[in-house]
Amino acid sequence: MAVIEPGDKIEIIAVKGIPDIKPGDDLARIIFEACQKNGILVEENDIFVIASKIVAKAENRFVKLSDIVPSPFSLRASKIVKKDAREIEAILNASRRIIRMRKGIFLAETEFGVVAANAGIDKSNIGKEDYLLLLPKDPDRSARMLRKRLEKLFNKKIAVIISDTYGRTWREGQVDMAIGASGINVFRDYRGSKDMYNRILKVTNIAQADEIASAAELVMGKKKGVPVAIVKHYLYDTTEVPAKKLNRKDAKDLYR
Amino acid sequence: MAVIEPGDKIEIIAVKGIPDIKPGDDLARIIFEACQKNGILVEENDIFVIASKIVAKAENRFVKLSDIVPSPFSLRASKIVKKDAREIEAILNASRRIIRMRKGIFLAETEFGVVAANAGIDKSNIGKEDYLLLLPKDPDRSARMLRKRLEKLFNKKIAVIISDTYGRTWREGQVDMAIGASGINVFRDYRGSKDMYNRILKVTNIAQADEIASAAELVMGKKKGVPVAIVKHYLYDTTEVPAKKLNRKDAKDLYR
Repeated sequence: MAVIEPGDKIEIIAVKGIPDIKPGDDLARIIFEACQKNGILVEENDIFVIASKIVAKAENRFVKLSDIVPSPFSLRASKIVKKDAREIEAILNASRRIIRMRKGIFLAETEFGVVAANAGIDKSNIGKEDYLLLLPKDPDRSARMLRKRLEKLFNKKIAVIISDTYGRTWREGQVDMAIGASGINVFRDYRGSKDMYNRILKVTNIAQADEIASAAELVMGKKKGVPVAIVKHYLYDTTEVPAKKLNRKDAKDLYR
Repeated sequence: MAVIEPGDKIEIIAVKGIPDIKPGDDLARIIFEACQKNGILVEENDIFVIASKIVAKAENRFVKLSDIVPSPFSLRASKIVKKDAREIEAILNASRRIIRMRKGIFLAETEFGVVAANAGIDKSNIGKEDYLLLLPKDPDRSARMLRKRLEKLFNKKIAVIISDTYGRTWREGQVDMAIGASGINVFRDYRGSKDMYNRILKVTNIAQADEIASAAELVMGKKKGVPVAIVKHYLYDTTEVPAKKLNRKDAKDLYR
């Protein structure tokens, strides 16, 4: 089996100067213009990593807290987990499964399948008091739309990864992962191929989209206001295997 | 609170031409010579990411299967999980906690605290039949020793991260993470600092060493035989906060 092996030198560049994103903004054009202003030469197969937060803002995924009417369950749960009942209501609205409830945190599986604290709903860096920001409704679809628009604007074939910051089991701290992807196979699958010593690799299937999201975070930071990075000279399979394939099915999960 | 924010452009370079590592090899010198042969200019604060496998080989962490005498427990467990009793014995020898047993897999907490399938014990890419390769005994210590040797050889202050490939809860596929680190704070901690809108960040504590390990994997691959990468121009806090701090304590784990 052939596996496209990555190249020997990659570059990761912060796309600076992206303004605060507002609902309805043409995000692809804003990214295009920021690249031009920064003199970033976009080449074939560059990978745009875009923070989910600005995608959600452009898609107007804001919810006004004072508009939310909590259900009786949310009101009761609020007392147990010490969390605003309206936030709990918003989490339920964005989820298909509640996995665990702890003080201040619901661990939830979002409607599109990612497992995230509080269903990925955010209050920091959104620039509006009394509002919550939900994740994009369908991040793979968002990635696909952005990819198509960016490809037209730059006249190059590229890939898009939408990233978000997540905690992990067993590990302290958070890392960025891919919640949406287009133009790239989110995996680099070695299963069935041979290692250096001609031995069949049985399990290795690298979640390259998650690694690319993590790599991009290294130039993005949380305070710099850099929500986009470009990964250059990385070799990858362009088969469309979206980020939802990264969501593990319950029964298969050894770690759960 | 001041947080060192990462730079705007980083480079990740594969260090090619590293030969098969044998027990007792001077790994730092081999890496030094490979950099020279490849014309890689090593600069102050470069980060060397080194695959745990070659560190383990240099430290002679091989165990001969036919030398292992399985305990009665390992023999009984072997029938339940369909796994060689001698491998199970080796996993127990390298662990301080067994978290789960499934067909073919023990999920174990190693003696130094990482949670890994089969305690990170490897059979692929080790070049010896009838042998297992354990993880380095104390990867933070290995990282520290390698850092000191590399700093002398290059006459530069650098950081070292020892990486390994891990599965995750909820997510398909594997990514590289940091199991050893020296010369770098494994975290970039924003807790208590303010976001772009002057709002206090409550939870964000980026596991930057894990992200760097993932980023480096993007040039390493599994078949190319590139076990070392250099991350350049990344800004980081050089306070010594080792990788063992990435191991989450049981009681704190929401995701477990």
